[in-house]
Amino acid sequence: MLKTMLENVRETAPLVHNITNYVTVNDCANILLACGASPIMADDIEEVEEITSICGGLNINIGTLGQSTIPSMLAAGKKANACRHPVLLDPVGAGASRLRTETAYQLLDAVAFTVIRGNISEIKTLALGAGTTKGVDADVTDAVTEETLDNAVSFAKKFAEKTGAVIAITGAIDIVADAQKAYVILNGHPMMSKITGTGCMLSAMTVAYLVANPDNALEAAAASVGAMGLCGQRAHARLVEKDGNATYRNYIIDEIYNLTGDDLENGAKYEVQ
Amino acid sequence: MLKTMLENVRETAPLVHNITNYVTVNDCANILLACGASPIMADDIEEVEEITSICGGLNINIGTLGQSTIPSMLAAGKKANACRHPVLLDPVGAGASRLRTETAYQLLDAVAFTVIRGNISEIKTLALGAGTTKGVDADVTDAVTEETLDNAVSFAKKFAEKTGAVIAITGAIDIVADAQKAYVILNGHPMMSKITGTGCMLSAMTVAYLVANPDNALEAAAASVGAMGLCGQRAHARLVEKDGNATYRNYIIDEIYNLTGDDLENGAKYEVQ
Amino acid sequence: MLKTMLENVRETAPLVHNITNYVTVNDCANILLACGASPIMADDIEEVEEITSICGGLNINIGTLGQSTIPSMLAAGKKANACRHPVLLDPVGAGASRLRTETAYQLLDAVAFTVIRGNISEIKTLALGAGTTKGVDADVTDAVTEETLDNAVSFAKKFAEKTGAVIAITGAIDIVADAQKAYVILNGHPMMSKITGTGCMLSAMTVAYLVANPDNALEAAAASVGAMGLCGQRAHARLVEKDGNATYRNYIIDEIYNLTGDDLENGAKYEVQ
Repeated sequence: MLKTMLENVRETAPLVHNITNYVTVNDCANILLACGASPIMADDIEEVEEITSICGGLNINIGTLGQSTIPSMLAAGKKANACRHPVLLDPVGAGASRLRTETAYQLLDAVAFTVIRGNISEIKTLALGAGTTKGVDADVTDAVTEETLDNAVSFAKKFAEKTGAVIAITGAIDIVADAQKAYVILNGHPMMSKITGTGCMLSAMTVAYLVANPDNALEAAAASVGAMGLCGQRAHARLVEKDGNATYRNYIIDEIYNLTGDDLENGAKYEVQ
Repeated sequence: MLKTMLENVRETAPLVHNITNYVTVNDCANILLACGASPIMADDIEEVEEITSICGGLNINIGTLGQSTIPSMLAAGKKANACRHPVLLDPVGAGASRLRTETAYQLLDAVAFTVIRGNISEIKTLALGAGTTKGVDADVTDAVTEETLDNAVSFAKKFAEKTGAVIAITGAIDIVADAQKAYVILNGHPMMSKITGTGCMLSAMTVAYLVANPDNALEAAAASVGAMGLCGQRAHARLVEKDGNATYRNYIIDEIYNLTGDDLENGAKYEVQ
Repeated sequence: MLKTMLENVRETAPLVHNITNYVTVNDCANILLACGASPIMADDIEEVEEITSICGGLNINIGTLGQSTIPSMLAAGKKANACRHPVLLDPVGAGASRLRTETAYQLLDAVAFTVIRGNISEIKTLALGAGTTKGVDADVTDAVTEETLDNAVSFAKKFAEKTGAVIAITGAIDIVADAQKAYVILNGHPMMSKITGTGCMLSAMTVAYLVANPDNALEAAAASVGAMGLCGQRAHARLVEKDGNATYRNYIIDEIYNLTGDDLENGAKYEVQ
């Protein structure tokens, strides 16, 4: 199943429109190419609707949002909905500032998202209201662990039901859920948190999977999350003495470049709840 | 001949002003350093003319153009003309949106370019009119191949005559032409298309070659295109199992860093038409 | 002493707010993670004060300043002062344009900086007045050498006295000085100048050191400068044939990732004047 998801990306080479932050944008472009897709970055209000129209899907990442890009995110998101293209929201830093939290809410109001992907704090900020957050760490409850997993899965399913989106909460344990069903994914490596942009890259790649697998958003998102985690493991296994996070970043993209459907099918560690 | 072009860059260390996209800007800066030049990135309208004045040449890349940078591109381009500095246009995505196509036309009207470098679709958009394009792929005619080469060379020469610029069309086969003469360059590797920014990097580096070889824009551009393709081949030969596009990107910049005039002279594969 | 400075960063994992250029921003984020800190990039006027409040320190880098980010730099800088957080100024290209020079002055007037870090030309521009500079190279006096060292140390101390900031002048020989005391640091490798962003990365990392060592700005800055130079040496020793500046960039970040307090204590080469 996951195998087909990956292979569909390589066969159809989806064109993905990204309105994303300037910190990790180069890595997002390269990982899209690595997985078999093509990136376009465009954020000016004068062109975002047109660019979205000619692409297969849209990735909205608020990592370095600003007065000029917020209207572009809204316009492109609505246009993608009108075109029935998949749209993903990566609410980077929601909870860290009022601007981020309110922009995320505004986007959730105006756009029907196919997937919302973030860390547990960001997703809790979106699901539980702005009033509960006071900065980056204030809403960081315990990470998803074996003990809290059942609650987290149930939380994800409820937020999926409320938003109509697949919810992807990534961390040590990843949860990808719609209202009925959740993939709990155990791939990945702790060192991935020592690289900037693993989340951003995953979001961009997930849009490629969504475009290539239009009738199966849940499994497409789960396959993308599994692929990223698996490549995080494989890249880590390649590290030698003296390698650090810069080499690790390159190796993760390299692994995505080389990952086959069989690799993913055999390497993905998950259960369905 | 090509050898001297490269060595002139290393000897004169040209300062290159870049108004470029935020996706590949870091790679553009590093490849300029790798080839022996120095980069400056500056795009605010309050400083672009002054920065252009103190540099040797200007690289205008519309990859993530916006309302605030378009006036900067126009102002800097005119200033570079007034200073008699070489100016290159990289019309990234011309044809993909009205904003890109019209901005490219506006720049062509206002600025006398020394070189225009793009892929075949972008150059066709510029040469054949906005009316013929409806997105990224709509104007993608067949790539330049053995069969279509004569037509493409003739097309490039005509557009060079019309614009007064050297036209560099890069792809599997590269064409670098002025009105009378064309270099058909056969270096390169297909995997270069799996990295974001090979075109952007080439454009930035080409400005360094133009500055260092002020009386010979055609050969300077051909040398830069040949160097990029040759380093694409050499970097590919260095790849081992598990390497992918991230490592490949690094190795291409590394190869530019190490490339000597003799390497280029001996490794360049081209014919003149 | 330096050992403790580094270990305090790893133990406290400072959160660093960066308003920085889009050229080297990814490297800045990755080097902050490498040294044990966490980066946040945010430059919109609507959120910079809030983001600064929740961070431990602020890095202001004018490398690609613009009309929209200059007010953000001023607002965030004042807020950091109000919060008694350390603030660093990296006056990239001061002297290269009126906008850069005047923005640097405006920032110096409005914000009390903990550290000002730049190359000798940039610092001279700040210390000796805008009238003396006419571009990137016009104010480039001789680099700091054995012969000019005494004068440079004295210059740094005086500018430290005038501004109340620790002054870090980096180049072949690095000087880190307050009004009374200067560290002259001899680590580093000439090839570091062939990578874009070594200065930017150092500035970002220095803020992490300042946050983690709140009572000792001079030694904290000296430790950060020493760490960067030492890792430049160690990364260079790792290079093999065919490696160039792209691999070197990655290895420097990798070395910062792996650097221990003992490595720094044993490898730092400096004298105090």
